[in-house]
Amino acid sequence: GHTLVCGYGQVGEAVCAALKQAGRSVVVIDTDAERLAYASAHGLQVLGGDATDEEVLKRAGVERAGALVSVIHSDPANLYVVLSARGLVPELKIIARASDESAARKMRRAGASEVVNPYQLSGNRIARLMIAPHLARFLSSDLDSSHFTVREGAVPSGYVGKTIEQFGQDSGALVVAIWRDNQALRARPQEVLLSTDTLLLAGTAAEVAGVGS
Amino acid sequence: GHTLVCGYGQVGEAVCAALKQAGRSVVVIDTDAERLAYASAHGLQVLGGDATDEEVLKRAGVERAGALVSVIHSDPANLYVVLSARGLVPELKIIARASDESAARKMRRAGASEVVNPYQLSGNRIARLMIAPHLARFLSSDLDSSHFTVREGAVPSGYVGKTIEQFGQDSGALVVAIWRDNQALRARPQEVLLSTDTLLLAGTAAEVAGVGS
Ligand SMILES: [Ca+2]
Ligand SMILES: [Ca+2]
Repeated sequence: GHTLVCGYGQVGEAVCAALKQAGRSVVVIDTDAERLAYASAHGLQVLGGDATDEEVLKRAGVERAGALVSVIHSDPANLYVVLSARGLVPELKIIARASDESAARKMRRAGASEVVNPYQLSGNRIARLMIAPHLARFLSSDLDSSHFTVREGAVPSGYVGKTIEQFGQDSGALVVAIWRDNQALRARPQEVLLSTDTLLLAGTAAEVAGVGS
Repeated sequence: GHTLVCGYGQVGEAVCAALKQAGRSVVVIDTDAERLAYASAHGLQVLGGDATDEEVLKRAGVERAGALVSVIHSDPANLYVVLSARGLVPELKIIARASDESAARKMRRAGASEVVNPYQLSGNRIARLMIAPHLARFLSSDLDSSHFTVREGAVPSGYVGKTIEQFGQDSGALVVAIWRDNQALRARPQEVLLSTDTLLLAGTAAEVAGVGS
């Protein structure tokens, strides 16, 4: 399904650009006509209205959506959107912005699947730039670049029941870890891949092309 | 040398917590007595004063510092700090916060080594949480946890001139890539390590313990 992005400020704009680059369908909701025109000019589908209004969420197709991102520049507004969307669609993936830890806790209680605090995130990023600068640059490479970087994907059906070593030899990608039972496991060469595993890979776009996501 | 952190708001607090956990020495500069008391209560060295004042930077030991982080909640103030610090110490590593792309460009022109925009960063993070959620969780694990995650470090002197395979077998860590000539190279098993390489590793704290940083 499509992704609803509520709020087209700086955060919303960056989310939409990355999702569009990844080929995802996006609908932007904002009250500001100027921001909407700007989103339209970036090739995005837009809907004018207040995302805190359930009717607006319904008109934007929240019941068929794959995910909702609430990145309005107001904690109360984002909290309201999270509560409304969670009430309408119990299984929806909802990611919300919160500007401090107290707001983040409220968002989680209201049903957000993930919460992003721009200031906490920036502090962690700056620390990583100081403690592990090369790693920070390696990991922040564009998801879609042709450079050697990290990506994730489902195990291709032809490799279920085969080993990590076989997958790596055929694809050329390096298996960094497998995500299984809600945690990262080291990629031992003889480990047999399950259909429910997610591969965490280092490689170029070409090398990971066979991996579904 | 120590790290000067100018501004102890949410971003500054997160930077200091991560640097302290990594064993770095930090000095906080802020004008607000309440924020300084809060920083002190977190075990940080503090200096009351306006970081846009060169005299204050000098009193905080900018000339002996290893790095300076300017994360005041004001683009003009951060720009001023970057210009002052760059003027005082040509080789200093300077990381600054900027709240939009126009401010980020100014910071770079003024001499910032790295610029972090909380809103751009949050947008990218949200997109990654949607496009590659397991990878996002793997990579955002605490730098110092005992979990299996990513880290970086210099090549231990005993391994300069030896292969990646030898290093991996002895340490138990997985070499994801090597950082050489300002880019990430894939870690081919027979590649010989240089003293100037940086290893980008996946492993537990114990497995990467021999790696200097
Ligand atoms: Ca209504
Ligand atoms: Ca002065």
